[in-house]
Amino acid sequence: MIDFPYLSSIVQKTPSRILMLVVDGLGGIPHPETGKSELETAHLPNLDKLAQHSAAGLVTPVVPGVAPGSGPGHLALFGYDPIKYYIGRGVLEALGSGIALHQGDVAARGNFCTVSADGVLVDRRAGRVASEVSAKLCERLNTIRVEGVRIEAHPGKEHRFALVLRGDGLSEDVSDTDPNRQDVPALKAKALKSKAERTATAINTFVGQARELLRDQEQANFVTLRGLSKVPTLPQMGAAYALQPAAIAAYPMYRGLASVLGMRVIPTGATFTDEVASLRTHFKEHDFFYLHYKPADAAGEDGNFDAKVRALEELDRFIPSLLNLAPDVLVVTGDHATPAVMAAHSWHPVPLIIHSSATRGDSVPRFTERACAGGSLGRLPSVNTMLLALAHAGKLVKFGP
Amino acid sequence: MIDFPYLSSIVQKTPSRILMLVVDGLGGIPHPETGKSELETAHLPNLDKLAQHSAAGLVTPVVPGVAPGSGPGHLALFGYDPIKYYIGRGVLEALGSGIALHQGDVAARGNFCTVSADGVLVDRRAGRVASEVSAKLCERLNTIRVEGVRIEAHPGKEHRFALVLRGDGLSEDVSDTDPNRQDVPALKAKALKSKAERTATAINTFVGQARELLRDQEQANFVTLRGLSKVPTLPQMGAAYALQPAAIAAYPMYRGLASVLGMRVIPTGATFTDEVASLRTHFKEHDFFYLHYKPADAAGEDGNFDAKVRALEELDRFIPSLLNLAPDVLVVTGDHATPAVMAAHSWHPVPLIIHSSATRGDSVPRFTERACAGGSLGRLPSVNTMLLALAHAGKLVKFGP
Repeated sequence: MIDFPYLSSIVQKTPSRILMLVVDGLGGIPHPETGKSELETAHLPNLDKLAQHSAAGLVTPVVPGVAPGSGPGHLALFGYDPIKYYIGRGVLEALGSGIALHQGDVAARGNFCTVSADGVLVDRRAGRVASEVSAKLCERLNTIRVEGVRIEAHPGKEHRFALVLRGDGLSEDVSDTDPNRQDVPALKAKALKSKAERTATAINTFVGQARELLRDQEQANFVTLRGLSKVPTLPQMGAAYALQPAAIAAYPMYRGLASVLGMRVIPTGATFTDEVASLRTHFKEHDFFYLHYKPADAAGEDGNFDAKVRALEELDRFIPSLLNLAPDVLVVTGDHATPAVMAAHSWHPVPLIIHSSATRGDSVPRFTERACAGGSLGRLPSVNTMLLALAHAGKLVKFGP
Repeated sequence: MIDFPYLSSIVQKTPSRILMLVVDGLGGIPHPETGKSELETAHLPNLDKLAQHSAAGLVTPVVPGVAPGSGPGHLALFGYDPIKYYIGRGVLEALGSGIALHQGDVAARGNFCTVSADGVLVDRRAGRVASEVSAKLCERLNTIRVEGVRIEAHPGKEHRFALVLRGDGLSEDVSDTDPNRQDVPALKAKALKSKAERTATAINTFVGQARELLRDQEQANFVTLRGLSKVPTLPQMGAAYALQPAAIAAYPMYRGLASVLGMRVIPTGATFTDEVASLRTHFKEHDFFYLHYKPADAAGEDGNFDAKVRALEELDRFIPSLLNLAPDVLVVTGDHATPAVMAAHSWHPVPLIIHSSATRGDSVPRFTERACAGGSLGRLPSVNTMLLALAHAGKLVKFGP
């Protein structure tokens, strides 16, 4: 939670509603041929108009220069210091597979891989084995029994799976078995702290049995594990902010992340149209909504500049229907930049606009990186977004006499 | 004090003088009809000209989104982290009544109130009883004797009074007796930590005796207490900055705050004209002056946009006489924003200008929120203001070899 020890003494419950639209991978950088970013290239009449009447700024998800994953990028927007509250790769992978994790559970990201007869890794991704094949192989893995620990392998896309360990006294302080390169053997899991011995032994027992169960496979004849991590104990948004928060996201990982923070996850369909319909249905039930828009990031990751422009233009068409719901505060921002030119998450600051009856506009003409840089919010760490949203909703009283 | 552990090794005594003009509630937001803030509406030829030749920026008192009280707002400007150094309501109320508080003293804010025969609160403000009446009733309260503790009730405005407890081993960790709503009985004071038992008992004894002494009153027949707090141990400005700091403020609370920080409080009259006359008289005696201007905040709190504009215009007329004193550094800023549109303190960043022979101007045309956003100081936490003032006065040597 944001490092402000008096938070509980300044939050107050009000009927006002906050809608936070998180455009995944929102920010970009200019295309070398046009000198214009994705936002500058896109035709965004509704977002531009909204920006003109909002408080605008640029947010930095973690620290300048650091490109965040979706985990830290989102945590920051909800007011959680992403350095203090780290969610490990294994947990995020499991959440992304729609697996419900509980306090104490340990999760790892698994890969099916190919090893030679003498155990040397020859393909870390088992030739990107088909998802159906790896689903079947997960069924085999789920026959493995290790004393005192319940182990579940949940299939993911292609060679990927999520491994979940449930039981008492498990530890996340265990090293990866994935050596992160080929032509070497996979590693033994090692306890990084003494209390992790039992967990490391359980992992090694599981891996040994997996080797036997997969021996008949040509490609996916072994597994590697990495990012062993535990669901962190996180302050819950509802209690921390005196809110009844809800999340609407088509992708499981974002739903999982929201549930870990204590948001109610509202069931929805696979498209943003579905998400907006769900929002409309449940709009009277909550005072804070996190609404996730994925396509901008997907296009950016693919390095497809035009597709990202189109994804932003598609989003723009939904803005009037969001405004029609009359949220008291509408926040539009992103969890990080995903410049199509880089085909990856980046460290660039991300546009932020906050629209409410307390904002009259900052003379920012457009919803772009360059225009928002001139707004009244200035440059902020993303972790400040949540308190600003609450302030604009009248949900914070004065601090100190 | 600002979190820079080498401060004592870089401060140096010089003959240069800093004048810090704190315009209470300086910042604002645009009027919905004109789209212009109070500063943008006001005719401020002298402040605008000063801004043109100053380093300009916007400061955030505590953290973005948090509206501060006068206490944290001022502490930050003097370089004290307002989260680390909290001054409680009782202490601030007592300081505001002009009561000298010493280390170990505990103060609370008191209200005269009306209770029914069975002890239920029917009016938390005793019908805003006349100040003369409550002054007389404070005399009665001052006859109360509690063993081992000296208790003083100092009358405030209308139903308000400040209660001061003096003695050894007193604690501030005692709950309010004010339930903060009506139609319920007042609460017993409770020790929030075991070492606070004696203080809680003293409070309850005082309250019990007060009930008897006020029983003949129709309106002010009881008291409630809240915000029990101790004078915090604060680094003293003089020692920390190698300064001889002085404060000139018409309102007692700001004088009290300054005295707690170790400033010499220069006696002055009730108006800003008086304050400037006092400044002129004593200008050779100190190397740092805190000069407080209250009317902008008062008008903002009243929700009176035009009055706030006039208050700013009145201030503007004093700028030439301040410059005539030839301070080496003139800082003009505010402790927080008080937008008239909101009729309350707000979280919005506040303009800051620093004028000295080391500043040549930032091409900032006016002393407004939007113009100062474009200045060379950028967006800063208010807690950085003090070191910048010292630097511009040549009072800081190089840090590190």
